[in-house]
Amino acid sequence: MNFSSKLLEQAVAEFGRLPGVGQKTALRLVLHLLKQPQADVERFTTALDRLKREIRYCVTCYNISDNAICEICASHKRDKGLVCVVEDTRDVMAIENTNQYHGVYHVLGGLISPMDGVGPSDLQIDSLIRRIEAGGVQEVILALSATMEGDTTIFYLYKKLKDFGVQISTIARGIAFGGELEYVDEVTLGRSIATRVPYERNIA
Amino acid sequence: MNFSSKLLEQAVAEFGRLPGVGQKTALRLVLHLLKQPQADVERFTTALDRLKREIRYCVTCYNISDNAICEICASHKRDKGLVCVVEDTRDVMAIENTNQYHGVYHVLGGLISPMDGVGPSDLQIDSLIRRIEAGGVQEVILALSATMEGDTTIFYLYKKLKDFGVQISTIARGIAFGGELEYVDEVTLGRSIATRVPYERNIA
Repeated sequence: MNFSSKLLEQAVAEFGRLPGVGQKTALRLVLHLLKQPQADVERFTTALDRLKREIRYCVTCYNISDNAICEICASHKRDKGLVCVVEDTRDVMAIENTNQYHGVYHVLGGLISPMDGVGPSDLQIDSLIRRIEAGGVQEVILALSATMEGDTTIFYLYKKLKDFGVQISTIARGIAFGGELEYVDEVTLGRSIATRVPYERNIA
Repeated sequence: MNFSSKLLEQAVAEFGRLPGVGQKTALRLVLHLLKQPQADVERFTTALDRLKREIRYCVTCYNISDNAICEICASHKRDKGLVCVVEDTRDVMAIENTNQYHGVYHVLGGLISPMDGVGPSDLQIDSLIRRIEAGGVQEVILALSATMEGDTTIFYLYKKLKDFGVQISTIARGIAFGGELEYVDEVTLGRSIATRVPYERNIA
């Protein structure tokens, strides 16, 4: 692109580095911000700067937090014996939105992915093991994505955790509620027949 | 959404204010930035802050510029008698990319749009009239979008400029190069037949 200004070009280049943002979108976003009042742009950059500088991770579960211990770990209403292992803070938000879970979390910060150079030592796996060694945990739920990386991480965690005498579960896989059979992929459909459950369990 | 951190929530809210960016996308972008090194995030916010603080608009054509007079207006190779009126800097970039235009520009900063509360006084129309009054301009090309707002602005500008004795043109409307007839909308196709041109003009 033929930029009339170096400043404009730099700002567009920075926006263009964001995932899923191409040069045309970056230019549109930058020109939008340029039309906003100075105070709005400052609020935008200050929010980002403060986030990066002041953000902390809960010392227990490693979720993003404003304090040393996150609200979930600090709550007396949560079952500390039930630990749900997730990839990142988005998964915590998704599970919290269900209002179905009253245990605590452990945020790995990613999944094992040799292709991307992410190994077990890059994730919060040692801290999970120490947490279980410290006692008090009865069950670990592995709530990871149903992808190659997710399955690899589940397998690794299972091998590491199986001798600690805690129950290890994975979240149920199957047909989504509202899902029509003819549109479900073969693997999911096949597995959901193989792992069928007695009807009484569904209405329990 | 159930944010675990106020800082995170604020940053997501700021990103979510950008056009075409929903809350989920905003969260994805913010978490991406959070994973980047401190220096990268600072370069991002600094580029935006500097753009907003230091950006200038060319005193002649009102295009975004790093200097008081933009490179195009300052160039001796450009024909100052030919002024192309456009909506914003993106249009300047698009026309420059064609390498077909060697005149100068006048950037209105928007289009007349009563629905959005944008009137002629919000745009660089008075400055365009003063530029023509100052003399030296032979032709004004109105290169505005083929939308309701574009046509309204063209009509307004034509009425304002027609008595100055300069040639007023609009860019050609018609079937795009590579466009297949069956997919062209009726208005464009009808107008392109009504405004057909002698074949000799196409090969000139």
